[in-house]
Amino acid sequence: MAKLTEPKKLKGFRDYPPELLSGRRRVLRVIERVAEHCGFQSISTPALEYSEVLLGQAGAETDKEVYRFEDHGGREVALRYDLTVPFARFVAEHQSEIAFPFRKLQIGNVWRGEKPQKGRYREFMQCDVDIIGVDSLEADVEILICLATILDELDFGKFRFQLSNRQLLSGLIHKCLPNVKDHAPVLIAIDKLTKIGRPAVLDLMEKIDGASPEGSERLLEVLGAKDNLGHTPLDLVEEELGEAFSEEVARFRETLQLLATQAGKNGIVQADLSIARGLGYYTGLVFETTLEALPGIGSICSGGRYNDLVSRFTKRSQPGIGGSIGLDRLVAALEELGKIEEESTYGVLVALAAQDARKVAFSLASELRRHGFCAEVGLQRKLDKQFRYADKRGFPWVLIVGTDEMDSGHFKLRNMKTGEEFSLPLHELVSKIMQARYDEGQ
Amino acid sequence: MAKLTEPKKLKGFRDYPPELLSGRRRVLRVIERVAEHCGFQSISTPALEYSEVLLGQAGAETDKEVYRFEDHGGREVALRYDLTVPFARFVAEHQSEIAFPFRKLQIGNVWRGEKPQKGRYREFMQCDVDIIGVDSLEADVEILICLATILDELDFGKFRFQLSNRQLLSGLIHKCLPNVKDHAPVLIAIDKLTKIGRPAVLDLMEKIDGASPEGSERLLEVLGAKDNLGHTPLDLVEEELGEAFSEEVARFRETLQLLATQAGKNGIVQADLSIARGLGYYTGLVFETTLEALPGIGSICSGGRYNDLVSRFTKRSQPGIGGSIGLDRLVAALEELGKIEEESTYGVLVALAAQDARKVAFSLASELRRHGFCAEVGLQRKLDKQFRYADKRGFPWVLIVGTDEMDSGHFKLRNMKTGEEFSLPLHELVSKIMQARYDEGQ
Repeated sequence: MAKLTEPKKLKGFRDYPPELLSGRRRVLRVIERVAEHCGFQSISTPALEYSEVLLGQAGAETDKEVYRFEDHGGREVALRYDLTVPFARFVAEHQSEIAFPFRKLQIGNVWRGEKPQKGRYREFMQCDVDIIGVDSLEADVEILICLATILDELDFGKFRFQLSNRQLLSGLIHKCLPNVKDHAPVLIAIDKLTKIGRPAVLDLMEKIDGASPEGSERLLEVLGAKDNLGHTPLDLVEEELGEAFSEEVARFRETLQLLATQAGKNGIVQADLSIARGLGYYTGLVFETTLEALPGIGSICSGGRYNDLVSRFTKRSQPGIGGSIGLDRLVAALEELGKIEEESTYGVLVALAAQDARKVAFSLASELRRHGFCAEVGLQRKLDKQFRYADKRGFPWVLIVGTDEMDSGHFKLRNMKTGEEFSLPLHELVSKIMQARYDEGQ
Repeated sequence: MAKLTEPKKLKGFRDYPPELLSGRRRVLRVIERVAEHCGFQSISTPALEYSEVLLGQAGAETDKEVYRFEDHGGREVALRYDLTVPFARFVAEHQSEIAFPFRKLQIGNVWRGEKPQKGRYREFMQCDVDIIGVDSLEADVEILICLATILDELDFGKFRFQLSNRQLLSGLIHKCLPNVKDHAPVLIAIDKLTKIGRPAVLDLMEKIDGASPEGSERLLEVLGAKDNLGHTPLDLVEEELGEAFSEEVARFRETLQLLATQAGKNGIVQADLSIARGLGYYTGLVFETTLEALPGIGSICSGGRYNDLVSRFTKRSQPGIGGSIGLDRLVAALEELGKIEEESTYGVLVALAAQDARKVAFSLASELRRHGFCAEVGLQRKLDKQFRYADKRGFPWVLIVGTDEMDSGHFKLRNMKTGEEFSLPLHELVSKIMQARYDEGQ
C-alpha cells in the first residue's frame, strides 16, 4: 500500500466548510444586489498576470509578499496581490469599449505571502467598487452612498464615515513643513495618530528630513482639532491654507453636507483630516469607515480618489474614485454581533424504508424541490441512520416512504423538533410542510 | 515621465467585462439554487496547496501543465488544476466534522498551463457536485437528477445522459482480453470510438500489450452493439459476463429505469458502454451528457463513481460519486442557442441639470433604488453627455433634475426608446416608471 500523504493545507490558507461559506455568500449577495442597483457592473480579471504589469519595472527587488514565479514558457508571472492594479490594466486595455464614466464592482481573491496573523490570511477576498473616467463630487458621493446602503442592508446599526482629503493634507503639510520634500513618511506618521497618540507621532516626525519641531506641532494641532461635533473645523483649515485651496475646501464641505442626509439611515458622517491613508495613489477625498458597535475591529470600508491610476499603462488620463470592502472584517463583525445565522435550510429528508419505494421517493423529492424546499432522498440503507442524518443536518421534516405507505396511500411525516407524526395522503404532504414553514415564518 | 508598461494579459487568460460576466453569473446562480434545493452544500478550498498534496509523491516529473513553484518559505506549492484532489484533501482533513453522506457543491477557478486553444483557457472555472460517504444507487441517481434539473432550468431543450459502468467495462475487457494486465490504454482507446471510428481504435489496440486481434474485435462488437433505442443491449453484456456480474448489471438497469422517469422533463437516458472516461479513479457508473441541439460541442457534464478517492490521505474508505459541469461549454452553448441575453438593466439616469439640484437628485436615485430599479445620478457636467451615457448604457429612462424642475415641482422624464417626454410631479415619477416596466414585462 502506498504511503499516505498528510491532508494538510498551507499555513495562512483556509477551507470554507458550508457553515463558514454560507454567511459569506449571503454578504456577497447583498453587496452584489446593492451595487447593481447603484449602477455598478461586475467585471473579473485573471489571478495570474505578468509580474511587470502587477509590480512595474521597479518591482524586481520590492514586494517580497507577492507570489512570483517563472511559468512553463519562461515568463515572469505573479498572483495578483490586490484588485486595483489589474483593474488599471483592464481599463487601459479596454478603453475603447468601456462606456465612461464606468462604475464597476470587482470581487475576487488576492494572495499575499505576508506573515499570517489572527484574522489575516495569505489568500483573501476583496470587494472593490470604483467609478472611473470622471473627477466629480457626484462620483465621490455615489461611491459612499453605495457603501452606506450595503452597510444598512447588512443591519450593522450605526456606522461612521470618516472623510479626509489628500489635497488639503498636502497643503497643510506644505504650509507647516515647507522644507519636507517627500510627504510619504509624514502621511504614514499621521495615519498612526489614533493608534499611538500625538507624542509618539511627534517622535516619528522628528526623524523626517526637513521637518521642524514647531511645524510638526502646528500640523498635528490642526489635524487633531475637533469642533463640538467631533469634526475637524474646516474654517480653521481654510484659514491655514488660504485662498488657493478654497475650491477644494468648498467641494469637501459640500460632500460632507450631501452625505449627511444621503448616507443611509445609519450613517454618521464626519470630517477627520487625521485620516491620511498611506497609499501613494490617492489625490483627493479619502475615507475610512468604522462600526459604532465594534470600533475595535478597525475600518471596514476604505478608499479614496485617485487621478492617475492608469498612467502606468496609458497616456489618457482616467480619474477615479474607489472603495474597498473588507469582507473578512465584515463577516467577523456580523458574527460578533450575532447577525450571521447559518442560512437555515428548510429541508425534508425523504426516507426510504423499502427499495420498491425508490421511484415514489424520487418523485416526492422532486415535487418538494419544485415548491422551493430543499429535499433529499435518504441514501443509507437503514432507516435509523437516515433519521440520524436528518437530525445532524437540522432538517425539520422526515417523510417516510415504504411498502406500507405505498399500499395505504398515506405517508408518515415526522416533525423532527416536536416528534409529532402525521399520516397524510400524497396530495396533502406538500401543503402541510408549506403551512408549517409559513407558520414558523421561514 | 516613466516608460509606459504595455497593458497586456498572459496568453490563455481572459478578462470578463460586464457583458461576458453577467451571462456566466446567471448560469452560476441557477446551478447554486438547484444544487441547494437538492441538498448540496457549498464549500471552498484554497487556490494554492502543497505540490505533494495535489500531485502525490510521484508528481515530481509528471504534470508539466501544473503551475508549480517554490514560495517565500521554500515550500513546494502548486495552483490547483482541478477541484477533485483538493476536495479529497478536504474530506480527509475534516472527516470528523462532516455529516456523511455529504452532498457538496464546489465552484472555483483552476489553472492548467496547457496550450491555449479556441474555447480552452489556462484559467477556467469548474463546478462540481459530489456525494461522498456512501456507495448507493440512490446517490448515483441524485447526482444525475441534480444535473438534469440544472439543464432543464437553463432551458437547453432535449439533452442526453449516456451512462456506462466501469465495473462492467473491466469485466468485458478481462473476458475478451484476458492477457491484458493494464486496462488503462484499452479504456483510452475505447473513449476514442465515437471520434475516430472502429478501425482506427482497432489499430490502436493492436499496440496494446497482450491484446489479441480477435479479443479486441469481440470487445468492440459488444461495446458498439445497439438495440433499436440506441442502447447497449444489457442482455448481451450479461450473457458475456456471466453471473459474477449480475448484481452490478441489475443496479445499472435500475439506475437507467429510475432515471428514465426522473431525469427532468428534457432528459433522455441511454446505456452506452462505449463511454469509458479515461480517468483512473472511476470504479462504477460513469456518464457524459450531450445537448441534442448542439451535439458537436461534446459533453457538457460528466463524472462517475469513485470508491477510493481519499485513500491517498486516509485509511478510512470514502466511496463517492461526482459530476462536473463544464461551465465554459454551457455558456458557449447558451450563447449559440441565443438564450443568453445580457441581464437587462432596467435603469434610470437621474440627470443633473443644475448643481443646486444635487440633493434632490440623490434623494430621487435613492427612492428609485428602494423600489428595485438601477438608478444612477449623472456624473458629467454637461446634460448632453449624460444623455449619451444613458444611451450607451441602454437605460430606458432619463429623469431630468434642474432649477426649473425644482421650482415648478414637476420633473421631466424621457423615454429613451420612444423619445416621449412626461412632466410629472415628484410622487408620480416612481409609479410611472414601475408601470412602464410592468407593461414591458420586465
